[in-house]
Amino acid sequence: MPAPAPASPAPVAQDRSRWDDPYGAANDPRVLIIGAGFAGLYAALRLRHARARVTLVDRRNHHLFQPLLYQVATAGLSPGDIAYPIRAILRRQDNTRVLLAEVTQVDLDARQVHLRDGVLDYDYLILAAGSSHKYFGHSEWEPLAPSLKSLEDALEIRRRILLAFERAEREPDPGRRMMLLTFVVIGAGPTGVELAGAIAEIARDVMVRDFRHIDPREARVILVEAGPRILPAFPPDLAAKAGAELQAKGVEIRTGAVVTAVEPQQVWIRGAASSPDCIPTATALWAAGVAASPLGRQVHGHPAPELDRAGRIVVHPDLTLPGHCEVFVIGDLAACHDARGRLLPGLAPVAMQQGRAAADNIRRASLGRSLRPFTYRDKGQLATIGRGAAIAEIGPLHFSGVLGWWIWATVHILYLIGFRNRFVVAFEWGWSYLNFSRGARLITGRLEPEPGERR
Amino acid sequence: MPAPAPASPAPVAQDRSRWDDPYGAANDPRVLIIGAGFAGLYAALRLRHARARVTLVDRRNHHLFQPLLYQVATAGLSPGDIAYPIRAILRRQDNTRVLLAEVTQVDLDARQVHLRDGVLDYDYLILAAGSSHKYFGHSEWEPLAPSLKSLEDALEIRRRILLAFERAEREPDPGRRMMLLTFVVIGAGPTGVELAGAIAEIARDVMVRDFRHIDPREARVILVEAGPRILPAFPPDLAAKAGAELQAKGVEIRTGAVVTAVEPQQVWIRGAASSPDCIPTATALWAAGVAASPLGRQVHGHPAPELDRAGRIVVHPDLTLPGHCEVFVIGDLAACHDARGRLLPGLAPVAMQQGRAAADNIRRASLGRSLRPFTYRDKGQLATIGRGAAIAEIGPLHFSGVLGWWIWATVHILYLIGFRNRFVVAFEWGWSYLNFSRGARLITGRLEPEPGERR
Repeated sequence: MPAPAPASPAPVAQDRSRWDDPYGAANDPRVLIIGAGFAGLYAALRLRHARARVTLVDRRNHHLFQPLLYQVATAGLSPGDIAYPIRAILRRQDNTRVLLAEVTQVDLDARQVHLRDGVLDYDYLILAAGSSHKYFGHSEWEPLAPSLKSLEDALEIRRRILLAFERAEREPDPGRRMMLLTFVVIGAGPTGVELAGAIAEIARDVMVRDFRHIDPREARVILVEAGPRILPAFPPDLAAKAGAELQAKGVEIRTGAVVTAVEPQQVWIRGAASSPDCIPTATALWAAGVAASPLGRQVHGHPAPELDRAGRIVVHPDLTLPGHCEVFVIGDLAACHDARGRLLPGLAPVAMQQGRAAADNIRRASLGRSLRPFTYRDKGQLATIGRGAAIAEIGPLHFSGVLGWWIWATVHILYLIGFRNRFVVAFEWGWSYLNFSRGARLITGRLEPEPGERR
Repeated sequence: MPAPAPASPAPVAQDRSRWDDPYGAANDPRVLIIGAGFAGLYAALRLRHARARVTLVDRRNHHLFQPLLYQVATAGLSPGDIAYPIRAILRRQDNTRVLLAEVTQVDLDARQVHLRDGVLDYDYLILAAGSSHKYFGHSEWEPLAPSLKSLEDALEIRRRILLAFERAEREPDPGRRMMLLTFVVIGAGPTGVELAGAIAEIARDVMVRDFRHIDPREARVILVEAGPRILPAFPPDLAAKAGAELQAKGVEIRTGAVVTAVEPQQVWIRGAASSPDCIPTATALWAAGVAASPLGRQVHGHPAPELDRAGRIVVHPDLTLPGHCEVFVIGDLAACHDARGRLLPGLAPVAMQQGRAAADNIRRASLGRSLRPFTYRDKGQLATIGRGAAIAEIGPLHFSGVLGWWIWATVHILYLIGFRNRFVVAFEWGWSYLNFSRGARLITGRLEPEPGERR
């Protein structure tokens, strides 16, 4: 038997304001990476064989495969299927440590990063804190129309969608029942399209025999887009095909419609020529407008970083911060332009490639070589509408329908981390394809709605 | 395109105080089942072909496979693997509806069940509200040493276990580091043994390469039991084998040790002859003491139900409530004695068999036949210590080690609901067996500890 526990109380913690580390070869440069999304994680992985002491900091313990987050929100996958512990990914990378911590400020002049409970020094810094959603000055809409960024967001959205059907089943008033069965998705980029398609499928295919008082097929799913068409980043022919598939699934598409108010039981929208229109709904979801992480505003030094309108940090073509060649900004936090002067989009492939490029430039810099500009190799883009329907733009080739869906599914499974996740996700998709079920239709969290939450 | 939404606001809800239902044949008796655990669910399933209008009420939308809940708490399985939507289980059972609602009171004389937002009438009532944990008058210990009853509990315990390792990795003070790496499990019934074994495995096998500053194998797992031995419900030889397996995994067992105080950073225990001993720990878990659901105290009528010390409702041998032959109490909420006068234990097999027996008695009663007393057919009991180690008592046969583990795993997979869950759980177990991993090592929920939570 081990010795019994000491009877004295635990000693008071010593000064924890600086957290120094004894690991690694003392002369190797300290590379500090903030954020373990696609950008930060791929940078860390690229430094595997580098002579460097790498520290990867994230306020979550897991890397999240964001492109499939909407499937957690719509009960198709479990959180564990699309998230992987950062430590486990990097366990065999001996030059790298992982810290669970929240960054509060970056001091460029002192070359220090302040955590909520400590300070880290660096020789090279990679800022990859990602993005969050933007409510265009209406932060009061956020609790009424949540957006999808973290696992917690996804579980909350799942709770609201499933709870709306449960409440409709018990609602005797037809008007309120229809309000409970109306789902409004605001913003028709890939996330909005994917959410709308998945909710329509839940209502039409998955839940069809589950209720006694309501017919879930009566549910309305309304996709609202301020621009003239859905999926503006895609070629018009593919976007049109996606629109047709959405309508075939029962989604109502309202383009050219600006949301003017989000209220507890209704959303107001205004078309180009019409008067404001009110949609009674218990479930509004926000998929419009991306803002860079607020960390961008907490980076201080001389010269100060320049931010664009979305809060992104403007960088040189080699991904360094102007005036601070030891600091790299990558992923959704970076405003990076390609050779033709176009801003690179906030997509996973851009983030991954920038992560690798920043890591390579740090290796060059530490060897005294000159840095190389980042070149984005556009391999195409994908979006899914649902069961056997997706669109894919790969160079000059356009795919849609079932073939598009196979490309979409294959690419997403290949980029998932870990055999276990790939296998389980493939199984879940195959299983739900065969019998129209969803593996994770759980309402968890609060039993009662919060005060102020719509019901 | 469907018609646009009505522009008028949703009409005010009508009187919802009574929720009447138009479904089912008007003359069939209304059977109301409270709770969709093993007891309530198996009662509902048994009424599949009965002439009855069955309503199953639960405040959760899912049936939870409680025996594997500890695996969610220790990152082995995802919530979706052991929970299944109640509606989906009963979707093809046309005489049954499922309601998501919380019961506040039972009025035996009026034959009504009060919900938080409505009233339900019944002809037959089955009370199967289950149990919760008992802190022996120290409810202030609950936030400091959470217990395991719901998915939310399991995710919170998972968060605390994983976060303790993360904090230890960043803790420079050796005393505080050891406190963070000390886990105290209070109560050595099956749940306590399973939790302690799983935490020891996480520390020794799963996380062993994940950290740079701590060696997770230094973690202490202490299993505290007030009684003279662990697993008191099991035969002494099997309990002794389980104890040896636990110690081989590094668990310290302290029997005859009463917890006298749970404080934010320590647990006080007192042995039979020794003075109080203080164990500094950041993570205490409660697996001692079961109390019946508080609903038992909200059942009113003449004659009033008799409760035993644990809050269970005393029932006749035919599972009816004395004086109310149309009311059945089953599962952990019932104090039911066998022919030899022994109280039946709060186990899943008892609950399942009582569910079926109550359903059969309702069918007999509605046909004017006399009720039959419930007879528990004891098929044995199982408990697992971890990887390839479990004990099984099946009639006169005792199994342990790998053979016991195979029996344990087979039985648990067979009783899971749905092919998808069986397949995924079998895969997760096989996968983690082969490579010592855990599929669900996610810290979700709050980023920062709550005020008053130990850290």
